[in-house]
Amino acid sequence: MLTLYHAPNSRSTRIVQLIHEMGVSDQVSIQEVTIPRQDGSGAVDTANPHPEGKVPCLVHDGAMIRESDAIMLYLTDHFGDNPLGRSIGAPGRGAYLSWLSWYGNVLEPLIVMQFCELSHPGLQATYRDLATANTRLEEALTTHAYLVDDQISAADILISSTYGWAPQLMPDIPAIRDWATRCLDRPATKAIAEQEKSVA
Amino acid sequence: MLTLYHAPNSRSTRIVQLIHEMGVSDQVSIQEVTIPRQDGSGAVDTANPHPEGKVPCLVHDGAMIRESDAIMLYLTDHFGDNPLGRSIGAPGRGAYLSWLSWYGNVLEPLIVMQFCELSHPGLQATYRDLATANTRLEEALTTHAYLVDDQISAADILISSTYGWAPQLMPDIPAIRDWATRCLDRPATKAIAEQEKSVA
Ligand SMILES: N[C@@H](CCC(=O)N[C@@H](CS)C(=O)NCC(=O)O)C(=O)O
Ligand SMILES: N[C@@H](CCC(=O)N[C@@H](CS)C(=O)NCC(=O)O)C(=O)O
Repeated sequence: MLTLYHAPNSRSTRIVQLIHEMGVSDQVSIQEVTIPRQDGSGAVDTANPHPEGKVPCLVHDGAMIRESDAIMLYLTDHFGDNPLGRSIGAPGRGAYLSWLSWYGNVLEPLIVMQFCELSHPGLQATYRDLATANTRLEEALTTHAYLVDDQISAADILISSTYGWAPQLMPDIPAIRDWATRCLDRPATKAIAEQEKSVA
Repeated sequence: MLTLYHAPNSRSTRIVQLIHEMGVSDQVSIQEVTIPRQDGSGAVDTANPHPEGKVPCLVHDGAMIRESDAIMLYLTDHFGDNPLGRSIGAPGRGAYLSWLSWYGNVLEPLIVMQFCELSHPGLQATYRDLATANTRLEEALTTHAYLVDDQISAADILISSTYGWAPQLMPDIPAIRDWATRCLDRPATKAIAEQEKSVA
């Protein structure tokens, strides 16, 4: 049994979107939990097995999986031949793993630092900057329609989710803008975003 | 053909250590490249295919894989039944993916911020702090001998590498200290660390 612990309008929304895009929503039970929100509302939910009370958190037959990229990979590997994943041995596997990791290792720290208005030579050396990150996205998206190849993958769902909750981060780069629109406008992804916004 | 682009005494050293621990050093060619070093020496190497000139960088039949955690996962998945990995469907797969991602998503940002002496409520909310990260490690390491279970995995090689190059980060927590010593003292891992130190 697979259970996703989810708080609407948060980093777990993209996991719900992936589950719907994969067409496996009948095979993953979604349990809503509360989290502390930036406006002071909400609180850690004792029903959430994540050791820090964060979401997303996935539990599969008692085993806990944390971190958005790990959860997406776990799900796409688990549901074998799903087109949202890239199997071991498939041509896109290396790019798929790289983009999933790059999101959490590079893009998310850059976004957090931007929100915190932090800059430091050590951060620049390690993470470079958002302009460099955007150059990476643009290179990929002028080579093919999606990050890995010409078919959408969970890495697109993960990375484009940024522009759903923080549209002000969208760079003035047509290849990135068009790709993000393509990802965010997909019926399943859009329906979940709108459903959650309406209850916010 | 698999090629690892590697700079001695850097974040790619742990990938070389993994390759030796896996016993596949005859199947991965290691190409040394230079990188800019903190002391001002070194420079980006045009032989390095990484778009930012960083290491590690793995190339498999023309496909580039970046990010330490993605590279370790790629290698352990590629060499199927290797005990350093956890296969899809194996009991430890979820914990294995979670620890690999946690390293890049949480521990490395915390370490970089500590080195940069940065603190900010937004960083604390997102990443918590090194004490919380150490609590996660301690919980796992008092439950079993290694992070995933009682057998060493690539996640142990990745995370324990921190204490090889930054021993000052070692917390005064016996379970973590003993585990890191067990990992770093393994003959293959230790031999590579010593070989590289002697040429530094
Ligand atoms: N790196 C984690 C970040 C998880 C995270 O910070 N989630 C937020 C929701 S957007 C959360 O649960 N916040 C509540 C809290 O930190 O207590 C991931 O991508 O899974
Ligand atoms: N998140 C990356 C970090 C890679 C990284 O920053 N590597 C350093 C070596 S320790 C590097 O190549 N620095 C040279 C540079 O930034 O130009 C990973 O773990 O693979």
